[in-house]
Amino acid sequence: MQKRVVILGAGYGGLVAALELAKEVTEQDAEIILVNKYDYHQLVTQLYEPAAAAKRDTEVRIPLVKLLSGKPIRLVRDVVTRIDPKEKRVFLQGGELTYDYLVVALGSETEYFGIPGLKEYSLTLKSVDEARLIRTHIERCFAEYPYDPRPEYMTFVVGGAGLTGIELVGEIADWLPRLCEESNIPRDRVQLYNVEAMPSILPGFDEDLAAKAEAILKAKGVVFKVGSPIVRVEPEAVHLKNGEVIRTKTIIWTGGVRGNQIVVDAGFETEPRGRAKVNEYLQAVGYEDVYMAGDCCFVLNEQGRPYPPTAQLAIQMGSCVAKNLCADLKGGKKVPFAPKILGTVASLGGRDAVGKVGERYKTSGRIAYFIKDLSQIRYLAKIGGLMK
Amino acid sequence: MQKRVVILGAGYGGLVAALELAKEVTEQDAEIILVNKYDYHQLVTQLYEPAAAAKRDTEVRIPLVKLLSGKPIRLVRDVVTRIDPKEKRVFLQGGELTYDYLVVALGSETEYFGIPGLKEYSLTLKSVDEARLIRTHIERCFAEYPYDPRPEYMTFVVGGAGLTGIELVGEIADWLPRLCEESNIPRDRVQLYNVEAMPSILPGFDEDLAAKAEAILKAKGVVFKVGSPIVRVEPEAVHLKNGEVIRTKTIIWTGGVRGNQIVVDAGFETEPRGRAKVNEYLQAVGYEDVYMAGDCCFVLNEQGRPYPPTAQLAIQMGSCVAKNLCADLKGGKKVPFAPKILGTVASLGGRDAVGKVGERYKTSGRIAYFIKDLSQIRYLAKIGGLMK
Repeated sequence: MQKRVVILGAGYGGLVAALELAKEVTEQDAEIILVNKYDYHQLVTQLYEPAAAAKRDTEVRIPLVKLLSGKPIRLVRDVVTRIDPKEKRVFLQGGELTYDYLVVALGSETEYFGIPGLKEYSLTLKSVDEARLIRTHIERCFAEYPYDPRPEYMTFVVGGAGLTGIELVGEIADWLPRLCEESNIPRDRVQLYNVEAMPSILPGFDEDLAAKAEAILKAKGVVFKVGSPIVRVEPEAVHLKNGEVIRTKTIIWTGGVRGNQIVVDAGFETEPRGRAKVNEYLQAVGYEDVYMAGDCCFVLNEQGRPYPPTAQLAIQMGSCVAKNLCADLKGGKKVPFAPKILGTVASLGGRDAVGKVGERYKTSGRIAYFIKDLSQIRYLAKIGGLMK
Repeated sequence: MQKRVVILGAGYGGLVAALELAKEVTEQDAEIILVNKYDYHQLVTQLYEPAAAAKRDTEVRIPLVKLLSGKPIRLVRDVVTRIDPKEKRVFLQGGELTYDYLVVALGSETEYFGIPGLKEYSLTLKSVDEARLIRTHIERCFAEYPYDPRPEYMTFVVGGAGLTGIELVGEIADWLPRLCEESNIPRDRVQLYNVEAMPSILPGFDEDLAAKAEAILKAKGVVFKVGSPIVRVEPEAVHLKNGEVIRTKTIIWTGGVRGNQIVVDAGFETEPRGRAKVNEYLQAVGYEDVYMAGDCCFVLNEQGRPYPPTAQLAIQMGSCVAKNLCADLKGGKKVPFAPKILGTVASLGGRDAVGKVGERYKTSGRIAYFIKDLSQIRYLAKIGGLMK
């Protein structure tokens, strides 16, 4: 008997879950519905590139109609407003859906830590549309400066020195000379800050790699303020805990991630930052018919600490969820989620990067960049290959 | 005995006057001082291209240090605030200069005809910096629209259907599909208007060429409102005389040109729109030591009507002024200004254009575009060639 599988979100986790499930089950087994806010899949790990004019928006956005073409997956372009797991029902802006099985892959939200003004006056980098806002905002600062030559226009702050913040600040650093040339503004008028509350950049990276990244970015003109929590943001100023004030019209906040409010509101069991708890099969606590994938949930590593939310984890979760749904639909044994961390590479703008592959191999420079590029190509081949 | 020649403005007229004079006189004859607000010469006739992202800003801007290198011309980068022709003195923001001979080539200003709100809420296209403001403003509208999907963001109005307005609206029309693709916004959400008070577009062009231009632009999606004077502008609305209101965040005003206020304030004899009257040698009325060149003055054609202000006229004036200054400095006969109108071509975006070469030859399409390109290359060769 046909069951309905509703997958919420066509990010890394949801898309892979949908594509892999569609490959394994027939339409007799299941009706697969994929709900997404946009009509495209976003390459979220690459967003720092269009944000700094290093790629076109169209290069980090893949039309879902292409990815789903010929697949037994029905796309519903809508925004999820509420999940009622007891009633097995999902509410959308434009309607509602019932399900037999649900996959929640709604991603994360930005954590502002209650810092006054931060949410109101910062930009974030979680979608292609937001990347475009960042890029056009920075270009606008350069366009307005000749008419109002205050340093606020020429000072740019990236808050957060995690992977996103570091990759973004590196790409902006590479962009600045081009912006200066275009606008006939001397480079020394421009300040680019990376502000981080923790004592060092790239938490989770080995110290020597983080130090190398810092040195490369400093050479590109990035000024680091580490161990400097932001305590307040105003329309034209960022206040640091040490009393320092950076006058700027631009703060891009990448320093905090939390779970999805829809998951919290649905009553799923979560940790304090709103990420859902899941069992070894990635099922929500207490709901065998609800799977989770990606940044909206968390799993623990061998040391008992949560894995950081990354695309590679989301992809592997999507894959695991597809397998387990398959077992639900067609019978068979579920597989426990066993993440394989393949390494992490941080791009530093241009063709610079630092990273680690597997447990041991550390790399930097063009080779690291090449590995990053390869992992991107492998992913595109994966979602593209599944299209056959 | 060395005389001091001060040239105000390094636009088409001033630059050509300076370069040609420097070629003919020695440093014993004259000290040549060129005063300019920017450290570059602007290809003002090309500004519609960077305004619509068809060229980079650096392609319409030539560093004066390059053009003047090795020439006996001293560049003073400053802004002219006042001319006192009786005292033979020029006041700058950063100082003052005396002169024996003065060339006023300060260009024109925008005429707003007293239309309420037009000056406050419109953009203009008279410099590279203004082109950048237009470009980043339009891109910003596309970036903000997904967050505030009101038609005001997707409606663009070019006021004025003279050469500048038509070339700009054509280039924007060509840009829109790319902007829509980049932003994932359907083209049919976007409206592009050209609003003109006169009953037809491209005044001064033959009727059949204007009609052809209108047809080409209509096919690109431009909506014309001719015979529709603007009566009032608000931050998000353009009111037409017929009562129609266009809701928009973008009005670019190209519909009026007047002389330079500095010329008026100096007490030079001008026509009602502030352009200086000159004699056949391009000397200001009553001042044999003051020459005028370019849009800040006017000359009459054979029918007794003023020639429209164009780059080709400014270039020829600069050349004539250089010859007459040469006669002043080294002796010889002055030459009367005898303009040769070589034709006019209006670009319509992409490789479309319409135009007239000489008195008879009418052209359109790629050939017209090619002729326009050639005239640009000839000019660059002229100012570049004078550098040898």
